[in-house]
Amino acid sequence: MKHARIAWAGALHDAIESDGQLELLTPAFRGQRVGFDDVVWLPPLAPTPPHRPRTVLALGLNYADHAKELAFKPPEEPLAFAKGAASLIGHRARTVRPAGVKNMHYECELAVVIGREARRVRKADAYDFVRGYTVANDFAIRDYLENWYRPNLRVKNRDTCTPIGPWLVDAADVHQLSGGPMALKLQTTVNGQVTQQGSTADMVFDVPTLIEYFSSFMTLYPGDVILTGTPDGVVDCPVGAEVVCSVQGIGELQTTMVSEPNRAPAPAP
Amino acid sequence: MKHARIAWAGALHDAIESDGQLELLTPAFRGQRVGFDDVVWLPPLAPTPPHRPRTVLALGLNYADHAKELAFKPPEEPLAFAKGAASLIGHRARTVRPAGVKNMHYECELAVVIGREARRVRKADAYDFVRGYTVANDFAIRDYLENWYRPNLRVKNRDTCTPIGPWLVDAADVHQLSGGPMALKLQTTVNGQVTQQGSTADMVFDVPTLIEYFSSFMTLYPGDVILTGTPDGVVDCPVGAEVVCSVQGIGELQTTMVSEPNRAPAPAP
Repeated sequence: MKHARIAWAGALHDAIESDGQLELLTPAFRGQRVGFDDVVWLPPLAPTPPHRPRTVLALGLNYADHAKELAFKPPEEPLAFAKGAASLIGHRARTVRPAGVKNMHYECELAVVIGREARRVRKADAYDFVRGYTVANDFAIRDYLENWYRPNLRVKNRDTCTPIGPWLVDAADVHQLSGGPMALKLQTTVNGQVTQQGSTADMVFDVPTLIEYFSSFMTLYPGDVILTGTPDGVVDCPVGAEVVCSVQGIGELQTTMVSEPNRAPAPAP
Repeated sequence: MKHARIAWAGALHDAIESDGQLELLTPAFRGQRVGFDDVVWLPPLAPTPPHRPRTVLALGLNYADHAKELAFKPPEEPLAFAKGAASLIGHRARTVRPAGVKNMHYECELAVVIGREARRVRKADAYDFVRGYTVANDFAIRDYLENWYRPNLRVKNRDTCTPIGPWLVDAADVHQLSGGPMALKLQTTVNGQVTQQGSTADMVFDVPTLIEYFSSFMTLYPGDVILTGTPDGVVDCPVGAEVVCSVQGIGELQTTMVSEPNRAPAPAP
């Protein structure tokens, strides 16, 4: 089943995909169908309980070909970092390209959504802790990689720069695909031209290994997300570009690049 | 006023300091007083609304003397990274020292809690966006700084390794101290011996500069936290050590080092 979080008619809703439409699950509107074009798509993650913050983890250089493309050797343990969850944004969102930057790269990634509390999980059991999968575009602004204290926040933690969605696809649906989650094709197009192609089969550290690794020293909670890295083929995305990141069987995540609003500093409160 | 989040009598409560006791604010118990020793102290941050994740930002090498101590040159822009908020733990907590590590350092830090949505804030207005201050101990396990992709999650994102508290002190109370928040003494003791002394006056990037910097590319939300870095004087904390991190006028944060529980892998669900 494919799940979505959307905004429609002045409220937030959970929905599922049904015959090319969105079927609302909100009690007041249960069963009502709305069109894909009639809603705002939000990150397809369940809201976290009030006392439980969400952790977003991301991998750098988790595809050997991409590491080579950037002239790095592949890491010997997962190169992982945390992101502020407030940088997430949904499908068909506008992502801001800062004025003056020269290399703002998309990064098409398989995103793993955790389904149950995970601590000291064995690789062989790891898939049992997965709620589902979605697509992420973990944009990077390489202009700001100016020192070795990377990846820094200016590169990876900006407002609007982590589109995710459109769907959270149930783990069971993905695990029954031929080859499972570790044999999915990834593809990115910019203005309709294919610029990136890869396969999750080429990850340096696969999904079960990542879950075993993270859960060896920290607890993963339901709703936490792991962005698993991108293969080679990253290119600069100019203002106006339509970027579509696809993961086979999971979804196609569309983003429009816009320029930075010419905003004055915030007034003092 | 000093605010606390505590667990007592089977429930969570907001409380304030009153004549050496905790005065509960929970409607069912409003006005009741309980002793400091009779409660569990939680991170003194307001719960975030269900749809708003909390972002925890941390600074590396933000005191020149500490950078020198670790044989680094001070950074030229803030060396900032995000942490998973699930690593936060409260006052009088037990922090786990992993088996076999050689250098697990406390890091006494002034923590800034954001009070209102902040985007493109000018340095001169920055203090207006601060809700208050607390103390953090941003433990680092330097054994795991084995490559230049730092600071990595194993160093800075472990369960129990970011004690914070005991109090959230109102910004107004701190701003009226002589010298304000940028002239506070920091001190750490291990088993009663003073091992670290410093002053927030020696930060490379002060609090208003950090708020201007972060808010230039990301939105800071109420409840977000900035851990502003530590001065020199970090030492290894063995199992059994009582570590007390103090920031003048803010509070004394006590932590007990414990060994890693000898736990089997999690059973498959």
